[in-house]
Amino acid sequence: MSAQDATSAWLRAWDDYEFHTLKLTRHHTTGVGHIGYRCSSPEALARRVAAIEASDFKVLGWVDGDPGHGRAFRFEDPFGHVFEIYWETVHYAHSDRDRPALKNNASRFHHTGAAPRRLDHLNLLSSDVAEFRRFMVTCLGSRVTEMIELDNGRIGGCWFTVNNKTYDLACTEEHGGGAGRLHHVTYATDQREDILRAADIFLENGVHIETGPHKHAIQNTFFLYVWEPAGNRVELANAGARLILAPDWETVVWTEAERRRGQAWGLKTIETFHTHGTPPVKT
Amino acid sequence: MSAQDATSAWLRAWDDYEFHTLKLTRHHTTGVGHIGYRCSSPEALARRVAAIEASDFKVLGWVDGDPGHGRAFRFEDPFGHVFEIYWETVHYAHSDRDRPALKNNASRFHHTGAAPRRLDHLNLLSSDVAEFRRFMVTCLGSRVTEMIELDNGRIGGCWFTVNNKTYDLACTEEHGGGAGRLHHVTYATDQREDILRAADIFLENGVHIETGPHKHAIQNTFFLYVWEPAGNRVELANAGARLILAPDWETVVWTEAERRRGQAWGLKTIETFHTHGTPPVKT
Amino acid sequence: MSAQDATSAWLRAWDDYEFHTLKLTRHHTTGVGHIGYRCSSPEALARRVAAIEASDFKVLGWVDGDPGHGRAFRFEDPFGHVFEIYWETVHYAHSDRDRPALKNNASRFHHTGAAPRRLDHLNLLSSDVAEFRRFMVTCLGSRVTEMIELDNGRIGGCWFTVNNKTYDLACTEEHGGGAGRLHHVTYATDQREDILRAADIFLENGVHIETGPHKHAIQNTFFLYVWEPAGNRVELANAGARLILAPDWETVVWTEAERRRGQAWGLKTIETFHTHGTPPVKT
Amino acid sequence: MSAQDATSAWLRAWDDYEFHTLKLTRHHTTGVGHIGYRCSSPEALARRVAAIEASDFKVLGWVDGDPGHGRAFRFEDPFGHVFEIYWETVHYAHSDRDRPALKNNASRFHHTGAAPRRLDHLNLLSSDVAEFRRFMVTCLGSRVTEMIELDNGRIGGCWFTVNNKTYDLACTEEHGGGAGRLHHVTYATDQREDILRAADIFLENGVHIETGPHKHAIQNTFFLYVWEPAGNRVELANAGARLILAPDWETVVWTEAERRRGQAWGLKTIETFHTHGTPPVKT
Repeated sequence: MSAQDATSAWLRAWDDYEFHTLKLTRHHTTGVGHIGYRCSSPEALARRVAAIEASDFKVLGWVDGDPGHGRAFRFEDPFGHVFEIYWETVHYAHSDRDRPALKNNASRFHHTGAAPRRLDHLNLLSSDVAEFRRFMVTCLGSRVTEMIELDNGRIGGCWFTVNNKTYDLACTEEHGGGAGRLHHVTYATDQREDILRAADIFLENGVHIETGPHKHAIQNTFFLYVWEPAGNRVELANAGARLILAPDWETVVWTEAERRRGQAWGLKTIETFHTHGTPPVKT
Repeated sequence: MSAQDATSAWLRAWDDYEFHTLKLTRHHTTGVGHIGYRCSSPEALARRVAAIEASDFKVLGWVDGDPGHGRAFRFEDPFGHVFEIYWETVHYAHSDRDRPALKNNASRFHHTGAAPRRLDHLNLLSSDVAEFRRFMVTCLGSRVTEMIELDNGRIGGCWFTVNNKTYDLACTEEHGGGAGRLHHVTYATDQREDILRAADIFLENGVHIETGPHKHAIQNTFFLYVWEPAGNRVELANAGARLILAPDWETVVWTEAERRRGQAWGLKTIETFHTHGTPPVKT
Repeated sequence: MSAQDATSAWLRAWDDYEFHTLKLTRHHTTGVGHIGYRCSSPEALARRVAAIEASDFKVLGWVDGDPGHGRAFRFEDPFGHVFEIYWETVHYAHSDRDRPALKNNASRFHHTGAAPRRLDHLNLLSSDVAEFRRFMVTCLGSRVTEMIELDNGRIGGCWFTVNNKTYDLACTEEHGGGAGRLHHVTYATDQREDILRAADIFLENGVHIETGPHKHAIQNTFFLYVWEPAGNRVELANAGARLILAPDWETVVWTEAERRRGQAWGLKTIETFHTHGTPPVKT
Repeated sequence: MSAQDATSAWLRAWDDYEFHTLKLTRHHTTGVGHIGYRCSSPEALARRVAAIEASDFKVLGWVDGDPGHGRAFRFEDPFGHVFEIYWETVHYAHSDRDRPALKNNASRFHHTGAAPRRLDHLNLLSSDVAEFRRFMVTCLGSRVTEMIELDNGRIGGCWFTVNNKTYDLACTEEHGGGAGRLHHVTYATDQREDILRAADIFLENGVHIETGPHKHAIQNTFFLYVWEPAGNRVELANAGARLILAPDWETVVWTEAERRRGQAWGLKTIETFHTHGTPPVKT
């Protein structure tokens, strides 16, 4: 934990270079408050702001920032998810207590719990993934690396990236009638063995394992999904050495028939994975 | 193997998206013929060509290309290494025989030998690493992610990247009096377990294991070095989930004292690692 | 493959010390022909033969043996499974071609396919597991390390061992009305990573993956089940460092309620696992 | 830790079935106080006592036991190592706090530090390994699975087992002039990945890593050696699926020439490994 006050806690993985990559805020329900992206330069931030302001998407304007980063520009997708983009950040400064043995790590490998290395991505829910894709491409300049095309012509899911990672954000179709919901947030481990070991830790500590460990057909990601005590879904993932190094990568399109084969090694996707999002939908 | 003729063979790892990532040419000695970088767009290629032509580095000019890519611009570092940059490439088109089970892979996981996923980086030797750094920054726009600063003020080694990988090229000091020499070429495996397994395969097949498996202090890379039968050093490496995601990453500088501690877990670097390069130096 | 003739093939894993650990016989259907155990000494063989002859189980008598071992004593369980016990065996003698780099291995690590190290166990089906247990204890002197006790008082499954392995044979309840059927045969890999890698190999080669990789609650075994082309179920398994080192180990008894929680990390056991055995039952 | 008083602490790995597998006693120096073996039955204990009493080795007689086991018979090898054998033991009884999620484990997987599963073996030093071998075979009925035969005809090292593990005790030649010294004690992890991860934990916590991770040629064991703060050498090891299942296993004999090739993947054995034992020799 990087910091904590009466209503919030700022968390990071041991090799995340920023002060925090997850902010927990005391709230009456679950879900995601906002999604933050750091731009690659002050100029890139200015270009993004201009593009967003020129678009038909909802602008919320500048905010002062947070203990973990400087001023940020806020905007919103058509489904109620709030985004922030910023340039100025707080690089994590380790104390003597968490000084790493190897100076190229952001802090000490603390080997506590699952101990992932860094934030990887998050997955949002949207009632219109095609429209969400337009939002991501327009506002964040994201590339679409893989997607699901349903038999009814709709997009079932879309995987986006702004760098060489295979994805930094995914969006899948909302089936529960909710708005602005989170499907999951993911941290990356160095090896898939770390995920198998984490499964034992979750088991011993009574954390609900929803599904996995297994390998996604989409993106080849080795995964494990659990629900934290309040109900938000958290994933541990390992991409192996897979990166999107082709600047002209063509979107991989999966059909419904292909998805019916299950995950890479045949595991059928369990029902809650299609329905559980946070916050829960009032019924 | 992607292709072969009387004098050359074009090789790639199973998930390299290009037609080839390693070209072997029949020759009287070992070493590297040229180093190729693909640019991120035709515009980026034009910008790089302009920068190189405006520099004091040696321009060799355009060549027609190769079975694996289109026309390329050639230039040379002050130490005799020939570089090529290009945009037009040949995306690998798998046949029915090597069609992958998962359509997002470039070809089938053939599980033959060490079976790494993709090309990772190469390491060149130079008698003046500081000058080599100027070459890489000027000509390729590379960032320096880590480096060794010797007690005598010289740079002992330098790690460069043009993307989110921790490095795509390294340069270390030439101690053998050679020119334009190669230290090693590296392919990336998905897991470090793949490297332990590969060590057994090399052992069973009489391939000279020079050092490893172990973990580099620099870049945290898990490594294994072998010499192919002709003498070129080949590395298998795994970076875990480590990427350079900070656009304002500050170069990590290692001192001689820090290097004396050995590799991450204490292994002393063996003597041949400091002296063996290819081609061999005539004595 | 150790040997082959017109009707049979003798197979072994690369570090199995015997000439063969699996004999394939050309036949009109699938299933297990017989199960062989090697005794720990000629005296142990004599003691077992005496115990079996003194029992009420069916004695088939001595047979001459096989290319892979000397004369063997045959007997049968009440469900139609034929067993053999023997002392004289043929230690595998590697040729120059499969000479191991390390002389303490039985043959070269060939790294072909899943490449498990050795035979681990097999699983038979029986309509009365309690009676099967009496057979194993009486005839083979096996210990019961774990078992399932159903709410109706029947034994749902039983895991047996005659050495320090957690089990060398398991028996689960026959639900398909068959007789003398096989549930699966298992080979052991060194690491569970080998099993994840094998899953990719099965996927690429169109082998039916029934379930896994996952971890059994019973015995903590990391597993993967596939069906070979003819339909016999084959498992790859890894027990980690788990052995039964307590001479006074008390049988671990699992209740139906405990089994309902699924496998160790929550995976529900798929339906075919309860019904598919070989040979298929005529309907 | 199972228990502690003013002068001793009783330790165990999380799946060791006995109350303790390591007893630490406050002392002015390092080394091993005594080595304990549990017999397989009261009858086996009686047989061993008779064999020891009939031998020319030094008998120390019965002692009352320890919080971790019942009465024990003490004897001594010619080099000053004290051994105990016993039958009555204290099976570890977990509390609610360390109750395992899976009832077939002795206690909860606590994932603290290296977290090995169980005790594996120890390695003693002796000035005459052939004589030590006579002691082990006579007194403990051990089998010799592998050994080193030096060019001078002496035995350089000997690996013993009384069960299916590849070894439970090793003895190597004392080169420092000490008596009754310990070379190392070893705990087993489930996977070799656990050992790579442990190396990072040792690194971050300033524990001296002597050598490894690497793979021994002898016994194929994947290893890592560290020195605990007082100086005793501790090993983490993983044997993969390798067991000695052949009742007629022939001792594998390694020559000096074979040993000169280094460990399995070529690592040269470092000097301290041949000289460092505990307690230190007075000079």
